[in-house]
Amino acid sequence: MDKTRQPAEYARFQDDLKRLAAVRAVEQVQSGMVLGLGTGSTAAFAVAEIGALLASGKLKKIVGIPTSKRTFKQAQLLGIPLSTLDDHPRIDLAIDGADEVDPNLNLVKGRGGALLREKMVEAASKKFIVVVDETKLVDGLGGSGLAMPVEVVQFCWKYNLLRLQELFKDEGVEAKLRLEGDKPYVTDNSNYIVDLYFKTPIKDVLAAGQEISALEGVVDHGLFLDMASSVIIAGTDGVSVKTK
Amino acid sequence: MDKTRQPAEYARFQDDLKRLAAVRAVEQVQSGMVLGLGTGSTAAFAVAEIGALLASGKLKKIVGIPTSKRTFKQAQLLGIPLSTLDDHPRIDLAIDGADEVDPNLNLVKGRGGALLREKMVEAASKKFIVVVDETKLVDGLGGSGLAMPVEVVQFCWKYNLLRLQELFKDEGVEAKLRLEGDKPYVTDNSNYIVDLYFKTPIKDVLAAGQEISALEGVVDHGLFLDMASSVIIAGTDGVSVKTK
Repeated sequence: MDKTRQPAEYARFQDDLKRLAAVRAVEQVQSGMVLGLGTGSTAAFAVAEIGALLASGKLKKIVGIPTSKRTFKQAQLLGIPLSTLDDHPRIDLAIDGADEVDPNLNLVKGRGGALLREKMVEAASKKFIVVVDETKLVDGLGGSGLAMPVEVVQFCWKYNLLRLQELFKDEGVEAKLRLEGDKPYVTDNSNYIVDLYFKTPIKDVLAAGQEISALEGVVDHGLFLDMASSVIIAGTDGVSVKTK
Repeated sequence: MDKTRQPAEYARFQDDLKRLAAVRAVEQVQSGMVLGLGTGSTAAFAVAEIGALLASGKLKKIVGIPTSKRTFKQAQLLGIPLSTLDDHPRIDLAIDGADEVDPNLNLVKGRGGALLREKMVEAASKKFIVVVDETKLVDGLGGSGLAMPVEVVQFCWKYNLLRLQELFKDEGVEAKLRLEGDKPYVTDNSNYIVDLYFKTPIKDVLAAGQEISALEGVVDHGLFLDMASSVIIAGTDGVSVKTK
């Protein structure tokens, strides 16, 4: 990251990097594929590129499975034929961004709030390509200091917030209900999000994932473990690809 | 069970047994306790008994944590002071019915649709007494041939129904979306219920519980494993108590 740039300038530049990674991932798309369409600013570049390739006739017979209502709308406007997991339970390729990527290609996702649908679609995909700019790389998950989301039922969300806080007290976690204005943010599935902010990275991500899932009332969490097939990283030094 | 009785007569008789078990459980309630209040026909007798003991002054300073909107209404009408897990994360005693009880006191619950709130409340209880009539005893869970419910998010419920069907194909499972009239039944948490009907009992209930929970989009399931402290069983030969 070129730290001499101004924040506003870097933001524009970061968008260029996101687009670069997204376009590179879409090179893997072939006509006739069923595609998982991710959610978020980087995934949106991939969806736009797929729409452009369909419009120009370079891609044909694509079926898209959107991971959020937002992505559904974007893809619909672009004329991408859409379906659901119910009708297409096997997906050839999913492309999506991530909030954090660790050296083992484990991810934090869902800061955009679509974690459950993303996880359902991406777990059903033969291949899952993650597209990020270099700022998303971390040594350990939770290490960015930004939110790791947990989707919980509305019923007794405070109780689950306290249990999550207790679970990660060694990592100095701060648990906060996600708000939209002055009201709780509500997911596409009518649930709430508890955002976890870690002071130090999570020590054992596999154990963490299992312990969070074991809490009654937790619907899912933003740890995407052992799911990514490859990660395309766009940085100021160019684009690199990491594969398992 | 006296099989010479007519069904209608047995149903009335079964209600007597349910009440018998419920009243016996309520003998464990002491003034000042925070109580988990179950859902269903047997639990309703326990809630009624607690209400009666409060009204007569034999019990004092009870706080009830209801496990469903239905139980909330019943308890409110009876004048039982109510709260939530958010304000009372530690519960002294929960009393609830069950749909099946196996020899290890593992349970199937949630045919009434309140499985998630029941599980949250009962997992937070120091002691959990199950009250049933003798028809609920099975050699293995799933063995009654009646529904084992799984709460799933509405999004792509068909996809999860098929995955559940696949998971238990050895048990000859039939998976059905629960309906209310001609529409899907919606839980207190805005989710759907997929009911599993097993031809043969589940072989390994611990593994089954973990495998169901691992499916993205499954919110919870009706297997209550290693949760009951004791089970009070009312039968035509009297009341018996099983304790772990």
